[in-house]
Parts: sequence; structure tokens; C-alpha cells
Amino acid sequence: TCPGLHLSADRSSKHLEYSKWKRSPYKHQSNVICSFLRLDLLPAKNGEEVTKHFLQELLNILLAYISKSLNRSSKVLDFHHPHQLKEGLEGFSLELQDQPDNLEQFTYEIAPVFILMEDIIFKKMHSIIGWSEKEGDGIFCPGGTMSNLYSVLLARYHFFPRVKTAGMLALPPLALLTSTHSHFSIKKSAAVLGIGSESVFLVKGKMIPKELESSIRTAKSKGLVPFYVNATAGTTVYGAIDPLNDIADICERFGLWMHVDAAWGGGLLLSKRHRMKLQGIDRASSITWNPHKMMGVPLQCSVILVQKKGLLQECNQLCAEYLFQPDKHYDVSYDTGDKSIQCGRHVDIFKLWLMWKAKGSEGFESQVNHCLENAEYLYYKLKSRKDFQLVFQSQPEHSNVCFWYLPTSVRNMPPGPERDRELHMVAPKIKAKMMEEGMTMIGYQPLGDKVNFFRCVFSNPATQKEDVDFLLDEITRLGRELYS
Amino acid sequence: TCPGLHLSADRSSKHLEYSKWKRSPYKHQSNVICSFLRLDLLPAKNGEEVTKHFLQELLNILLAYISKSLNRSSKVLDFHHPHQLKEGLEGFSLELQDQPDNLEQFTYEIAPVFILMEDIIFKKMHSIIGWSEKEGDGIFCPGGTMSNLYSVLLARYHFFPRVKTAGMLALPPLALLTSTHSHFSIKKSAAVLGIGSESVFLVKGKMIPKELESSIRTAKSKGLVPFYVNATAGTTVYGAIDPLNDIADICERFGLWMHVDAAWGGGLLLSKRHRMKLQGIDRASSITWNPHKMMGVPLQCSVILVQKKGLLQECNQLCAEYLFQPDKHYDVSYDTGDKSIQCGRHVDIFKLWLMWKAKGSEGFESQVNHCLENAEYLYYKLKSRKDFQLVFQSQPEHSNVCFWYLPTSVRNMPPGPERDRELHMVAPKIKAKMMEEGMTMIGYQPLGDKVNFFRCVFSNPATQKEDVDFLLDEITRLGRELYS
Repeated sequence: TCPGLHLSADRSSKHLEYSKWKRSPYKHQSNVICSFLRLDLLPAKNGEEVTKHFLQELLNILLAYISKSLNRSSKVLDFHHPHQLKEGLEGFSLELQDQPDNLEQFTYEIAPVFILMEDIIFKKMHSIIGWSEKEGDGIFCPGGTMSNLYSVLLARYHFFPRVKTAGMLALPPLALLTSTHSHFSIKKSAAVLGIGSESVFLVKGKMIPKELESSIRTAKSKGLVPFYVNATAGTTVYGAIDPLNDIADICERFGLWMHVDAAWGGGLLLSKRHRMKLQGIDRASSITWNPHKMMGVPLQCSVILVQKKGLLQECNQLCAEYLFQPDKHYDVSYDTGDKSIQCGRHVDIFKLWLMWKAKGSEGFESQVNHCLENAEYLYYKLKSRKDFQLVFQSQPEHSNVCFWYLPTSVRNMPPGPERDRELHMVAPKIKAKMMEEGMTMIGYQPLGDKVNFFRCVFSNPATQKEDVDFLLDEITRLGRELYS
Repeated sequence: TCPGLHLSADRSSKHLEYSKWKRSPYKHQSNVICSFLRLDLLPAKNGEEVTKHFLQELLNILLAYISKSLNRSSKVLDFHHPHQLKEGLEGFSLELQDQPDNLEQFTYEIAPVFILMEDIIFKKMHSIIGWSEKEGDGIFCPGGTMSNLYSVLLARYHFFPRVKTAGMLALPPLALLTSTHSHFSIKKSAAVLGIGSESVFLVKGKMIPKELESSIRTAKSKGLVPFYVNATAGTTVYGAIDPLNDIADICERFGLWMHVDAAWGGGLLLSKRHRMKLQGIDRASSITWNPHKMMGVPLQCSVILVQKKGLLQECNQLCAEYLFQPDKHYDVSYDTGDKSIQCGRHVDIFKLWLMWKAKGSEGFESQVNHCLENAEYLYYKLKSRKDFQLVFQSQPEHSNVCFWYLPTSVRNMPPGPERDRELHMVAPKIKAKMMEEGMTMIGYQPLGDKVNFFRCVFSNPATQKEDVDFLLDEITRLGRELYS
């Protein structure tokens, strides 16, 4: 995407996290440090001094670390067995609580025991989903598309383990099912994995259970073997959530793998107020959940969670002896290297673990609630105004709010293709003017029979109602200038 | 891997970058800042004050950035067209030189124009490889395994574009060829992509051209269609480089895609002294090159380079309208989002670009030369000693040095299975003692008919000859303690 836009993607976050930026292959991570902590640092009011002090401490730690690591007489290793690390380091526990941990409790000298952190985070996520302690596995992936790709890969291996060695030629022709509004990564996965994008059946609407059933039957009648259904919890554009329990019923009946793409909607599970929207998610065979979206973890942080233990390992291991030595003198069950497609990985876990430790589950909950309150605020504002029109009349399920701005000229036109043509031009015109002035940014797109509409997505907990007002004022101002 | 080890992986880098750590799914990035700059910062002698000053400046920038971005009256966007950015920002050019850029020239306020940086880096890499200006494309991947996976994906699509929509069932049974010493990712790619790991033919040795030819014929006689050959430039264990020109001849003759996995060996291209070892690499259809290895860029930084322009895009695009709007008012040729399998990506380019800017090509060259000099130093040291034995008598092609430590008891035994059994135990015993004491670390493994041997890999430019001496002294000391 245009490089000029990247800069603003980050800076604009103070106003609203516009979903437009999702299409950018890069997002910045400059807010890492300030978003780790809950109350006292910026963007908190009067947080400048505390933030400065915090960064100063970080600087000292970095410096001490570099000096120490250059001293040949210092140890390069202070070995602890995994169980020792898990039991706690000098009184510091890796476990996560509902309440935030105090900054003072945080010992900077903690060993970066990333694999244990993964273990703890996955257990936490499994319990939030509703899986029993005997179930559940997972791995961090470079983005939601890769997490979804893993789900297809795992489902295929689960039903047809021969595919790993013998390839697709040893399998019957397969079929995958997903909704028309689902993320393009399901089709992409089918293409990459050698199943072919034509094997993906698109089911109508906010996945209509009857339509799903009939698509399954159609696939079968064509001689294909359906094996995988993707349900979306939080679609990209509308933030809609497929009826998970109904879909789970159908998957059970037909013996299909149920994946839930909750990349965007997963965050709602942290809110007592909103989690019932995802009822039935515990029946999924696998789940994609991106903490880098609603939970505000800096890009990238995406997980694929798998109900069946051991499957990830079985599916992806190739036993590269020189990489994974079997004769180690410690507990090797934490050697997770061959669960992933990749070899080395980014330390995405650390960002999530640290934020969870600092905010507590309750911190995430209030953050999620706050974003949905902002969406609700915008929704009611739009509903009350004549110069705006909602794409859907019902209250949004997630924090996506889609709407048109209606210049007087358009408002006075009768519904029909002529009005549509005119309305289709409004959002791009306003957006171009916005980019010129640079004071605010928002994305737009057409979808299906709906002409270009604005889409506002809230995921930045620093956003205030005043920012929402500011956005509407700006659109109105620019719209009046353009259509006066 | 064991979490206790992770801590040391980083700290040990002061001594030697032991390849053992490659198996760890995580590496730390704490050395990011100090490795960006050439001369004056730590690990330079007396670099503490300069480093402190540098970090202090960084801190001020961070703080100013956060404050500014929280101010509602500041712009969120300062739009520049791509060509404007490329032409230079206030006198600052994105282009890369042979010589390092002065720190003072570096303007911190530069827009993070990552896509343009990618463009510049790829052009640089293409010209280093020897591709013409009309050729060449590329993308940053989450690790070398993914880069290799892309190469197989692209080769398959190049010969059989139908696979994208129709899957493997529309294709004849395929065959891939690679050497027994190549990275396991080729087999993994075949498994993931639905080709099947059994389709991978392992060619003997440091790929023997005659053996490659005969494997191609064997595959054909079995009714398979060979389409892809992976040549390795820098194998994981020995650092060996396959004969690229001979392999290119064969690929041309049979009409096969030639991939060069130069994940590890690619760095040698930056050295006038060593680049001839990779002669013929310009004939490759695709190349994996990991700047996070020999060039010292913090994990992860891996690229797949593709000779045929446009193929990446064709192979991976799915036209998700809501992500990639076609009606933008600026040059969209820099919209690279649909070239990758993933959607969002880490900003791995920035680390590489910044290091290149700061070190210049010449900085990388002297770094590479220094690492190979250390390997040579170790090689001659070992050659001259009776208590050590080299796995190969010839000088290493890359910076991998493989050797056994020979306690007197083993030295006095005649060659044969009994001596092998004894020798096989030496490295693990010494390694266990090393981990207990924590003063140094080194990896070992058996391979083929060779019993457990130590493997030392140099990629840290801060390593000195004294560190090599220290390592040998430590092995000798521990060996004597164990076998006295």
C-alpha cells in the first residue's frame, strides 16, 4: 500500500482504529511500551512523567544487559529445569490473574521463558473458550491467514493422515465450506495446500444453517467429500458472528471439522457482557484468535487453538535430528519446535503475556467493553441524524459500524439506481479530501449490493466519545464543503 | 526447547554464535539497537557512553512521539505520493551505498516507508545476485522454512497454474529433488502443499550432479513429473555449498525450476573474497536468503527472491476487494499485500534497511570476512592439535567448523566400532558439564556415519580470536576433568 499512509496508520490510532489499515501489510509497533501497562503511563492523563521514568528504567536495563553480555567472565547460561521455572523465579509467578499485577511486583530480571509463557497463555485461552483441561493445544502464527491455513492443514491431516507423505493424489476430491462474508484466507489456504480454491463452497449470508446443509449436500452430489466448515466470529466488514451452535450441530451430524475464525471476534470472550455472542465456540475443533486485534497487542500476535491434543505435532513434525536432539538431559515435552510449519519464530507470546500480566483479564474486559460502548455511541448518534444512514438498522454485534453520509442532494433523491450511483461517489470523495487535510482517516468499501459505505472499527482503548464526535463533525464539514 | 537455554542463547553470543541455538523457536532481539550501528556503539571498546547517549536520544524520540500522537489537534496523515518519497525526504535518500552513512546524517523523523525500502533492498539483492534490472521480485517471509515453501509453491504454479483453483488432483504426480544434507523444509513444504513428502527425492552428498541426473531419471521411470530442484548454498551442519553451475546445467536441460536455499550461505555474496563460491546462483529461478543469519539482522529476516517478475502476485492474489481497493488516487503498484500468503506482516525490512544504511555493503563485507577468518583460525588450531580431530580435513567453505574432542583413552584406540561408541559419548558428556558450569555453550550432533561431533558456527561479528581460544581451552579443561 502507499507508504505515505503507513505513517498515519499509527498516528491515527489516537482517533479511531480505522479498519482501512487492515489492508496494510505493515503496522507499527511504536506503541508497544505504552500499551503494556494499565493505568499510569501514557495515554493516561498526566502520564508523561511516569512514562519518562519507565522508559528511563528500560534504558538502564538495556545498557546493563549489553555491558554484562560483553564481559567474557560472566556466565552465558544459568540453567533451570522447566519445572523449576514454572514453579516460580524468586517469588515471581508466570501465571496470569484476573487482576492486574502491580508494576512494582515486576521484576525486570525475569528469564524469558517463552515456551512456558505459551503454555500458560494457551491454558488460559482454552479455559476461556470452555475446553476441559485434557483438551487443547495451540501455536502462535505469523498472522490470522496463517492461523486459518493451519486449521485447514490440521483438518485435512486429521481425516486423511496419508496426505502428509502421499499428497492429495491419495485423497478423494475435498470440499470446504465457509460464508460469503468470511475472510479470503480460507480460499487462499485451499489454493496453497493443493486442494484448490474451487473446492471452497461459499454459503450465503451470516452463515444460514439451512444454506450450509444444502451446500454440503450439493458438494456431495458432485462427488466431493466435505470435511471442513469455517464459521466466522466477527466478519471483516460487518463484524457479524455466525450462529456457532447451529453450525456445530450440522458439523456433528455430518462428521465435519468445525473451525471458528474468531481472529476479530475472539476478544469478546473476555467480556462477561459480550461473550454469549460466541456461544458454541467450545464445540469447535480449532479456533483462530488474534490478540493483535481487539486485545490491542502490537502486530503480530495470532494463535491457532486446536481441541485435539498432539495433532499439531503429528501433522507437522518431520524429525530433523540435528535440530531437535532427542538425548537431552531435561524434560523435552516443552520442545515445541516441530509443532509449527516454520522453524524459528518471532517472540509474539511475550507481548501478549506481558500485557495480560499488567492488565489482568479484567483489564482486557474493560478495554473490550469500552470499544463496544464507543461503537454503540456512534450507532445511536448515526441513528438520530438525517445526514447519515446506517447500513444495518440493528445494533452492531461487534465494534464495526457501517454507514453512509448523505449530502442533501442525495437525501432528496428517491431510492433507485440513480441515487445509488450518486451515493457510491460520496465516500471516496470525502476520503480523498480527508487525506489531503490529514486530520482524520476512515475506510470505505462497497459490498455485495451495497454501494461505497464508511466503516468504523473500534479497537483502540484510548478512543474517547469526543473522538467519535470529531470524526462525525469532520465528515459533515467535508461533505458540506464538497456538496454545497 | 528448554526455556532455561533461551536466556543464554543471547548472552552466549559474545563468545560465539553457536548453531545449536538454531533449533530454538525463539531468539532474542535485545541486541537490535547496538547492532544497527557500525563503529561507535557497544560492542565497540569504550562504547558505553556513546551507547547511553544513543539510547537516551531514542527515549526522547519515543516520548515525543507518544505525546504528539495523543494530541487531537495534530495531523494523523501527511500524505506523500510514492514517487515523492522515493525521490527523497528533505535531503535524505532511501538508497543504499557501499559505504556506511554517518550517524549525524540520519534523520529520526523519516517516514517509515517500508514498501519503498523493500523495493530498494530487493533491487540491491538482485544486482548482487547478478540478475538484470528487468528480472527479479521478492518478499519477506517469516523464516527460511516459509521462504523455501514459497519457492515450491511458485515453481508448482509456474508449471501448473491450474493448481490454484483445481488443486493437485488436476496435476500429474510430481517429484522434487534435493540433497540428503539439505534443510528439512523442502520435505515439509511438500507435505504442507499437498504434494506429499514421499515425492521428495534425496540426492546423495554435496549434491553430486551425476546422482541428480540419475534421480531425475528414476523419478520419471516411476511415472512422476520432476519439476523442482533445491540446491543448498551453506548446509545446516557442514556449511557445504552444492555445485550451482552444474545443477543449473541439469535444470536447464530437463526444464526444471532451480531453487537455491542460500538461507545460510547468501551472506557470502557480500564478500568479494568469498562470493565465487556461489558462482551460478544468478541462474536460479528462486533464492532463499536469510539476512538474520550471516548478516546479523535480529530474527526474523528472511527473503524469497524470484527471478520471474509478477509470478508472486499471480500465484498468491485472490483479489479481496475490501482489503485492496482498486480505486485509490495514487500509484498502486506498491500495493504488495497480495503477493504474500499472509495478510499483515512484521516490519522485518526495516531492520535490514537500517543496518545496511548504517554499515554500507562494505560493513557487511568486512563482517562476513571476519566470521570466515574466525572459522579459518579455529580450523588451523584444530588441525595442529592432537586432542582434536576435524570431521573434514579440507578447509570449510563457510563458517561451520565440525570436530571431535579426543580424550587420551579414545586417541589410543584403533579405528572401529568400539572407538566410535566411545567417541559418540564424549560430546554429550562435555556439553552436559558445560551447561552446569554455564561459561560457554556449543552444539553437537551425529550425522550419517559420523558419531556425535561438535559444530561451531561463526556469525557474530563481535567474536574475537580470544573467544575461540577460550572455547577450546574450556573443552580441553572439561574433557580432562571427565577423562582423567
